[in-house]
Amino acid sequence: MNEQTALKPYVIGLDLGGTNSVFGIVDSRGEIKATTAIKTQGYGKVEDYVDACVTALQVIIEQVGGIDKIKAMGIGAPNGNYYNGTIEFAPNLEWAHNGVVPLAKLFSDRLGIPVALTNDANAAAIGEMIYGVARGMKNFIMITLGTGVGSGIVINGQMVYGSDGFAGELGHVIVRRDGRTCGCGRKGCLECYCSATGVARTARELLETTERPSLLRELKPEEITSLDVSIAAGKGDELANEIYQFTGHLLGEACADFAAFCSPEAFIFFGGMTKAGDLIMNPIKEADEENVLKIYKGKAKFLVSGLDGASAAVLGASAVGWEL
Amino acid sequence: MNEQTALKPYVIGLDLGGTNSVFGIVDSRGEIKATTAIKTQGYGKVEDYVDACVTALQVIIEQVGGIDKIKAMGIGAPNGNYYNGTIEFAPNLEWAHNGVVPLAKLFSDRLGIPVALTNDANAAAIGEMIYGVARGMKNFIMITLGTGVGSGIVINGQMVYGSDGFAGELGHVIVRRDGRTCGCGRKGCLECYCSATGVARTARELLETTERPSLLRELKPEEITSLDVSIAAGKGDELANEIYQFTGHLLGEACADFAAFCSPEAFIFFGGMTKAGDLIMNPIKEADEENVLKIYKGKAKFLVSGLDGASAAVLGASAVGWEL
Repeated sequence: MNEQTALKPYVIGLDLGGTNSVFGIVDSRGEIKATTAIKTQGYGKVEDYVDACVTALQVIIEQVGGIDKIKAMGIGAPNGNYYNGTIEFAPNLEWAHNGVVPLAKLFSDRLGIPVALTNDANAAAIGEMIYGVARGMKNFIMITLGTGVGSGIVINGQMVYGSDGFAGELGHVIVRRDGRTCGCGRKGCLECYCSATGVARTARELLETTERPSLLRELKPEEITSLDVSIAAGKGDELANEIYQFTGHLLGEACADFAAFCSPEAFIFFGGMTKAGDLIMNPIKEADEENVLKIYKGKAKFLVSGLDGASAAVLGASAVGWEL
Repeated sequence: MNEQTALKPYVIGLDLGGTNSVFGIVDSRGEIKATTAIKTQGYGKVEDYVDACVTALQVIIEQVGGIDKIKAMGIGAPNGNYYNGTIEFAPNLEWAHNGVVPLAKLFSDRLGIPVALTNDANAAAIGEMIYGVARGMKNFIMITLGTGVGSGIVINGQMVYGSDGFAGELGHVIVRRDGRTCGCGRKGCLECYCSATGVARTARELLETTERPSLLRELKPEEITSLDVSIAAGKGDELANEIYQFTGHLLGEACADFAAFCSPEAFIFFGGMTKAGDLIMNPIKEADEENVLKIYKGKAKFLVSGLDGASAAVLGASAVGWEL
């Protein structure tokens, strides 16, 4: 711990989600010293949202000894742009769905500390590098398997932001030409198949287009989630197992292609779907092994995030603050 | 020019190809002061090859004032590994097809100067960054369209070597699942379609499977090259034009996916096939525009290398030396 860290031993992390905004005050070892949360929605203007955040924050800032103990703040947010500290056209945020919101500056002006912002998957990657299984790694790819598929890419020990701050959208690499329609308006994106939503979609497709028996037939098709598929697979349901086999296979094929880009030391998977464990990880590894170029074979590790799911997003966000 | 550059104003560049090894002594502005070449083949052992190189080099080293004027040497070579300074299992080099050859060290020991080595596409990218159209760019992707398809990726102003020194093999990203068989043993790689060899293969396929008229029918199918296709297209041959349309379209689709990785400022194309000009560049741009994720649309430039073809490979190799 250097001198500055001794004087200002904490950073604030904000995991800004579509529903909740979760704050943590974190020390350099990744211990969350204080935490609070507010709803993300219900504010017409971003200024009102920031006001509500600061009010909630003041309580936990006092708990750790006041703002003087805090070095910086890091924010992980959908459609976050690191270079500009902005959230840009985020479809699920009422106060940012239709423009460019300078959120880092708004917080910095109110709190009087430096504030950095990046997208949630990048925050997860930085968190993993500082606190998780990527400690010591200089080259890895983080893939977040949630409602969507996100990614954060680290090369030469640095986060890849690209020329515009929006690099690392591997969920929108096209894995099936003219495949499923994606939320982004294009067809066949990795996200359409390998997100939690994609897994549920695969389940519905298989139930509709075949007569095969499955525990999933006991549920209303439109209510099936990836968790249901995981539970059914755990009970030995053949169709559910095949869904994870299919999903993992597509992810593994995609990883084989990603290796040709930056030959990472590891692919690290994060998010609810990783709870399926070997059910998803084994087909990923198998498909990578079958598809990867010979010079990369057997080199990359396939890991599940080392961060506790509940606090990982806040830790990741705080990690962006440590980089300042 | 700093003091060290004033004392040692030159680097040696070696463009090590399957047929010829071309040397240039280059100054910091990219001017080639002296040049020589030997055949790459005809040496059973790498030591004999290095002996022959050094003998040829001594003549041009004297021309520029002796070895004291030379800062370093850079080598661009197939299957070159930057981290280790080695050539590894290069199928077309008799003295390196079956093992790992420490070529950088062999040259460094003989010449008494630092020597760096990387693969030819990476050398081209570094050359472009120092002397060509990528001057001032921090994020770009170089795609070399030759007998094969190679790539060199620059992120945050640094060459991407990955965890093992072999990053950037975008010619082996799979663009058509279960597509054409590739030299690498897999199927559907970008290289099978968009290299000069791939273009000739597309021509043969179209001539065989259709009855369509074409100037290309005047040639023996097995002797058709991408240059023939380019010449026929230039004469208005419809089939030949369609071949370039198809090739460029696949490249553009691939670039759209590559953008999701590192959102580059530019894609820079290098190699014989770029002589086809708009014939290849227009369909690349069109397909990228049609396929790229909305946030990247209209951002990346599509450029042709700014380096003179004859000297580009030597300049690129020398540029690797300047990085030392």
